[in-house]
Amino acid sequence: MPKRPPKRNAFYAQSGGVTAVINASACGVIEACRKHSTRIGKLYAGRHGIVGALTEDLIDTSKETPAAIRQLRHTPAGAFGSARYKLKSIEQDRAKYERLIEVFRAHDIGYFFYNGGNDSMDTAHKVSMIGAELGYPIVCVGVPKTVDNDLPITDTCPGFGSVAKYVAISTREAALDVASMAKTSTKVFILEVMGRHAGWIAAAGGLAGRKAWDAPQVILFPEVTFDREKFLGRVKDSVTRNGYCVVVASEGVKDAGGKFLADAGTKDAFGHTQLGGVGPELARIVKDGLGYKYHWAVADYLQRAARHVASKTDVDQAYAVGRAAVEFALQGMNSVMPVIVRKSSRPYRWTIAAAPLEKIANVEKKVPRTYITPDGFGITAACRRYLEPLIAGEDPPPYRDGLPVYVQLRNAPVKRRLATNFTV
Amino acid sequence: MPKRPPKRNAFYAQSGGVTAVINASACGVIEACRKHSTRIGKLYAGRHGIVGALTEDLIDTSKETPAAIRQLRHTPAGAFGSARYKLKSIEQDRAKYERLIEVFRAHDIGYFFYNGGNDSMDTAHKVSMIGAELGYPIVCVGVPKTVDNDLPITDTCPGFGSVAKYVAISTREAALDVASMAKTSTKVFILEVMGRHAGWIAAAGGLAGRKAWDAPQVILFPEVTFDREKFLGRVKDSVTRNGYCVVVASEGVKDAGGKFLADAGTKDAFGHTQLGGVGPELARIVKDGLGYKYHWAVADYLQRAARHVASKTDVDQAYAVGRAAVEFALQGMNSVMPVIVRKSSRPYRWTIAAAPLEKIANVEKKVPRTYITPDGFGITAACRRYLEPLIAGEDPPPYRDGLPVYVQLRNAPVKRRLATNFTV
Repeated sequence: MPKRPPKRNAFYAQSGGVTAVINASACGVIEACRKHSTRIGKLYAGRHGIVGALTEDLIDTSKETPAAIRQLRHTPAGAFGSARYKLKSIEQDRAKYERLIEVFRAHDIGYFFYNGGNDSMDTAHKVSMIGAELGYPIVCVGVPKTVDNDLPITDTCPGFGSVAKYVAISTREAALDVASMAKTSTKVFILEVMGRHAGWIAAAGGLAGRKAWDAPQVILFPEVTFDREKFLGRVKDSVTRNGYCVVVASEGVKDAGGKFLADAGTKDAFGHTQLGGVGPELARIVKDGLGYKYHWAVADYLQRAARHVASKTDVDQAYAVGRAAVEFALQGMNSVMPVIVRKSSRPYRWTIAAAPLEKIANVEKKVPRTYITPDGFGITAACRRYLEPLIAGEDPPPYRDGLPVYVQLRNAPVKRRLATNFTV
Repeated sequence: MPKRPPKRNAFYAQSGGVTAVINASACGVIEACRKHSTRIGKLYAGRHGIVGALTEDLIDTSKETPAAIRQLRHTPAGAFGSARYKLKSIEQDRAKYERLIEVFRAHDIGYFFYNGGNDSMDTAHKVSMIGAELGYPIVCVGVPKTVDNDLPITDTCPGFGSVAKYVAISTREAALDVASMAKTSTKVFILEVMGRHAGWIAAAGGLAGRKAWDAPQVILFPEVTFDREKFLGRVKDSVTRNGYCVVVASEGVKDAGGKFLADAGTKDAFGHTQLGGVGPELARIVKDGLGYKYHWAVADYLQRAARHVASKTDVDQAYAVGRAAVEFALQGMNSVMPVIVRKSSRPYRWTIAAAPLEKIANVEKKVPRTYITPDGFGITAACRRYLEPLIAGEDPPPYRDGLPVYVQLRNAPVKRRLATNFTV
């Protein structure tokens, strides 16, 4: 009879900016660990992500009821706390990597599930390497998450589909509003969206319309250098034709000098750099250049936390990659990340496969030029074909007293085993 | 046998900032007119509100199918176009009032339904007076609408409940986000909301939490003078206790000098007045005063157009006041507006009554001090009791391809009968 692999504990951490569905991935990880209780002992979560591991501030997820874990599937943001905390190279941050292994060893943690974006996949890969080097083998599996949708290989990144749906819906709704008002009032409406260096979220605004000159009439991508005159020309054309113009602008839009438009060097009366984003800056450009009455919105966290209008496809995929991470680990895979593989677009069919972390880390997938119309202001049919399935389906949370019911976990601490403290 | 009143046409116009449910009121008006086809002939709508009446640009709503009209109930913004166009006193704007009567006479319009806020109720009242004066009796009935919730007499204003729900949900969701991130990143999140001089929408943010120190920890009302030091003290306390602080700020917040905080006199590098609202301004105050990392959001039109997350109570009431306006007109009432009368709060029971327009026009209902906690930063139990039923219930629109399906009417023009043009 073959020797049964020893039962070991697991560790899960959330990393970077949270999303409407990162807890659905947590739900997938936790439920899969519970299902495999003969192989995996306790599943610990890091309080505030990797910081919880470094400071030995672990959460015992076994104290949560199955019902509470199930509710993670419809609860936005990071139930265990996330962290913006990047570990550098092993050479530069050796003490931190060694500390991680020390904590993992103290708690008999044999599996590390890291739920994040690009940087986190890099970290997970390095933890796997340092574990092997220090004689503490640990299985490291990434769980993809980023609203920016910029991870390579995977068809999409959990978190993106729901932001995309939020932005498409909000654009459609606000466009009806400005169209109603344009005769005597606002003519230009600008919606600033997230996405950093990648224009995927801005592109999703394009789903709000169907035909030429439907709103949004202008999408500004980080992938296309901002040209003030071309922009104003397009806005003017739209106002002339439709009476109004809707602009969806990525926060990462840059000018020809490579400088963020949002960082236009404008100062307030006290000499402080203006805190406005690209939305108010574009409003200023429209006002100065064309004199139209404008309104602007910056959705900020509202867009990535909007679980009330999440994409069902996104929720399903977030859960699936969480579960797959555990399955892959138990199949003996290491330093991998579950990716979503598109089998067809219409109808959308997808499956999960494993990709090596080293091929994910530090690669940024931007919107290809073929997804952007030649004039740089819209999305092509190919882009629409790519995006549409990602926002498909509704999965509303339960409501009570008119508000979504989101779970608050107990987050019971695990008793410390190390004498040493570690300050991050 | 009593003489049957003559069959006359009716006119409906949308006015001012649109809402998620003003079309539900339009639906109520149109369906009620169709039901009473023995008394009311055609129902015309003003293209771009009252401007359409002045310019004789009328829409024939009889060209729309019953299904299309039904879909107005779940379609946000103004299906016929709205206008920010205020008629002044009869003395100042006599030519315009006379023109209105001229157009109404040309199209045999005996009923005027005006769907708007304070100013619109004033206009409707004046139209009724000038009609009588000019020997053209016209029945003028207002249909209440304003997200600001500042009309007197009525328990609430259609449009408000849905914005309130949007703000409460968004605050709850964004609060979970910032709580997740606060350990290593954003500590203060500021959401700027609408409401002008009344803090009702900001107050609705308070529904996101239940207990002391739940988010939002700070609500800034126009009814409470902004005090920089008290504000910073409260933000600091919240960050110390909870690790983070969520601020919901009304766009109408003013300082001790009565100046809007959003209009702080700050200029950009080109000497332009800064276009940012109160959100970025508060962020600057937090950064300068406490140094915390912040994020801010300005929902702007997104909040009042968000039909995807409308309050069912609000939709029902919007429809009911539209229908009641027609019923009242046919009962011979003139210069009235249907108001919502609260019979009980828990459970919420309401009915519709008629109130004279002259008692509505030019009266602004602000948040009473008893609805605001003594420190000025929260809502009281009485306020919660008032607000809760207004956001109750969900009434999602139909979805196709992941997006809400909103109707686009044909908006067929009515043949002009007047030789004269009128420029507005």
